[in-house]
Amino acid sequence: MTSIRELAVSAREAARHLASRSRGQKDAALCALAIALRDQAGVIAQANARDVARAKEAGLTPAMVDRLGLAGAALEATARGVEQVALLPDPVGSRHEMRRLANGLLVGRQRVPLGVVAMVYESRPNVTVDAAALCLKSGNAVLLRGGKEAAETNAVVGRVMQQALRESGLPPAAVQVVPASDRDSVRELLSLSDLIDVAIPRGGKGLIRFVAEHARVPVIKHYEGVCHLYLDEGCDLQMAVDLTLNGKVQRPGVCNALECLLVHPEAAARVLPAVADALLKAGVELHGCPATCQLVPQAVAATAADWGKEFLALVMAVRVVPDLDAALEHVARYGSNHTEAICTESHSRAQRFLREVDASCVLVNASTRFNDGGQLGLGAEIGISTSKLHAYGPMGLESLTTEKWVVLGDGQCRT
Amino acid sequence: MTSIRELAVSAREAARHLASRSRGQKDAALCALAIALRDQAGVIAQANARDVARAKEAGLTPAMVDRLGLAGAALEATARGVEQVALLPDPVGSRHEMRRLANGLLVGRQRVPLGVVAMVYESRPNVTVDAAALCLKSGNAVLLRGGKEAAETNAVVGRVMQQALRESGLPPAAVQVVPASDRDSVRELLSLSDLIDVAIPRGGKGLIRFVAEHARVPVIKHYEGVCHLYLDEGCDLQMAVDLTLNGKVQRPGVCNALECLLVHPEAAARVLPAVADALLKAGVELHGCPATCQLVPQAVAATAADWGKEFLALVMAVRVVPDLDAALEHVARYGSNHTEAICTESHSRAQRFLREVDASCVLVNASTRFNDGGQLGLGAEIGISTSKLHAYGPMGLESLTTEKWVVLGDGQCRT
Repeated sequence: MTSIRELAVSAREAARHLASRSRGQKDAALCALAIALRDQAGVIAQANARDVARAKEAGLTPAMVDRLGLAGAALEATARGVEQVALLPDPVGSRHEMRRLANGLLVGRQRVPLGVVAMVYESRPNVTVDAAALCLKSGNAVLLRGGKEAAETNAVVGRVMQQALRESGLPPAAVQVVPASDRDSVRELLSLSDLIDVAIPRGGKGLIRFVAEHARVPVIKHYEGVCHLYLDEGCDLQMAVDLTLNGKVQRPGVCNALECLLVHPEAAARVLPAVADALLKAGVELHGCPATCQLVPQAVAATAADWGKEFLALVMAVRVVPDLDAALEHVARYGSNHTEAICTESHSRAQRFLREVDASCVLVNASTRFNDGGQLGLGAEIGISTSKLHAYGPMGLESLTTEKWVVLGDGQCRT
Repeated sequence: MTSIRELAVSAREAARHLASRSRGQKDAALCALAIALRDQAGVIAQANARDVARAKEAGLTPAMVDRLGLAGAALEATARGVEQVALLPDPVGSRHEMRRLANGLLVGRQRVPLGVVAMVYESRPNVTVDAAALCLKSGNAVLLRGGKEAAETNAVVGRVMQQALRESGLPPAAVQVVPASDRDSVRELLSLSDLIDVAIPRGGKGLIRFVAEHARVPVIKHYEGVCHLYLDEGCDLQMAVDLTLNGKVQRPGVCNALECLLVHPEAAARVLPAVADALLKAGVELHGCPATCQLVPQAVAATAADWGKEFLALVMAVRVVPDLDAALEHVARYGSNHTEAICTESHSRAQRFLREVDASCVLVNASTRFNDGGQLGLGAEIGISTSKLHAYGPMGLESLTTEKWVVLGDGQCRT
């Protein structure tokens, strides 16, 4: 059996070749890949059915079983996703800020792929295809280490993608599925600092902690989204209702859903009853501070554990705070650097919120649910970063590249 | 005694306040800091003299003792460096690529400080001031953990800088000197992933390996510079001589000095004798491949260990390679992603070299010695990165920042 180091060595070799391929070659391979997925839909569906059957036997929750599906419409949507990636602009090769220095040197930066990306993820086998497409488009080789629940699906999909690459004249080692055996193999993968440029974990907190703890390669990650909305003094009542409801209810189980409402005393008296009413009607359980509980009798008393908690459910913490400063303090203390929003009519307080809140996405008068690569116009996302190095927020194709310096001279020497 | 965690907690608090200070406030503090260094030159010189005396007693090499000096002209140069940082543009706060989406949202990015920077470095106490100035200007708090050789100097300089911050109305905890006791304290510092945003090590390979091995926070680093120059078929003879000599001889002990010359067979016959002659006259020892040794009798036979070696001395490896492909293979195998150059008159081969070489700086017809923050126009550099995440190459003020997403709406919700 090929060792994980050997897989990574061949990935690095493939990355070197991929880095200088033209957009045309990469896009042709992506289109071939989409066609191959459709051609092999039967084989993929069979492998996927075996994974699904095993998951049901093992007693996985219906939600987890559902996430495993990669047949029929799910496979077609994934193939269409690959074609959409082909349509995105190629970030590689562009030169920026080329400036002429006093000594005549022309100096600037050229965008290049990162090299070898290690994706470590759980269940969803569509990530296998999505990540491969984004890495290929951005000129990176990728090692795909999915969960063992989807092992058969991932293996078949990996073979289909490699065959498509081979037929397109690109190195098949650019996309490799790493067999999902145990966590030792993840640890080995994450130790290859001479071969892997970045690890991107996607999944539950346990997996992400494991990756962060064991990686000897750079990691881009996010743990959780504890997102707040601050209803400012004088904010619009209907807007406050809309933004709160959309943030909490539209899809409560995701990282950009709203978890905590902060309310200025003026807004508490004027808009909180209507906001709470809408939330309660939508089935949201409210955990309120004493002032909240006084205004909203249906709210239960919040405990200390409610602040900074990611409920991922129809539960929301609500706190009346004296002013914007207190709201900023609360966000700095309990937020997770993910998504923070203010509902305000005040220009100066909007600017202060934008400037002072440290989060990957800060919104004024818009739902927290917009912090998403697709919604922000990235076309597709490979993940989201709440650490500030390299990328902060949703990561699209550009986040899978870096810039090297280029210097064009005519014989200049340093004196 | 204050624990390292407590220092980091106060740094994080200071970082929050610093992030929203205006350029004017930060520049005023930098100017006050330069004045304070000059005012306290006597006290600093005394502490520095004690460090230098101890270093001499301990038998440190004259070069190492020399690097410890921070009195007289060295301190004045450092103070002037701080004033130069004040003159650089402030990277923080600018908004980029604000675009209006179909739903009316205005979406873009805003440049923000990283937060808390941990500098881990050896000997040179001027780094204490340089790093503090760059972090302050970019709105970051910094924890400065210098070598124990410079402990007294660093402690005094730290107190002088904190006093200047206090008088300028900025939080003194923004610049803190961490006592240099043992490596356990470095390990503790590097474990504070909830408080520190990035660690930047500067020093010998041993220190950098230690930091990379123990860090639970993101690290930006470079190990070494194994820099090549490829003399292409048809290259200009005089330019080949100049670039080789400048790369190797101008300052052989630094990371962007030339370590290995690769030569096309045509150039070997035509220009290598003159290049070798100039190098030999400058006292450079040549370790050549068989073809080189035939053309240059004074060269000694290279061994396998000479390829990929960072000599940091007047020694150079020389290898005749069949063509550009072979040169690219050699660089990919033995280079250190630091600085690579080609001397050529061919436009197409120059473009291929620029595209295919994976290094933080790739040069055409210019000396490798230009890969330096000052030379490339950054104004000042905090370090150089040969890992590709976040920064690749010399890091100036912008590398000490990141971009968050900002979204301006008028009540938009996601559907």
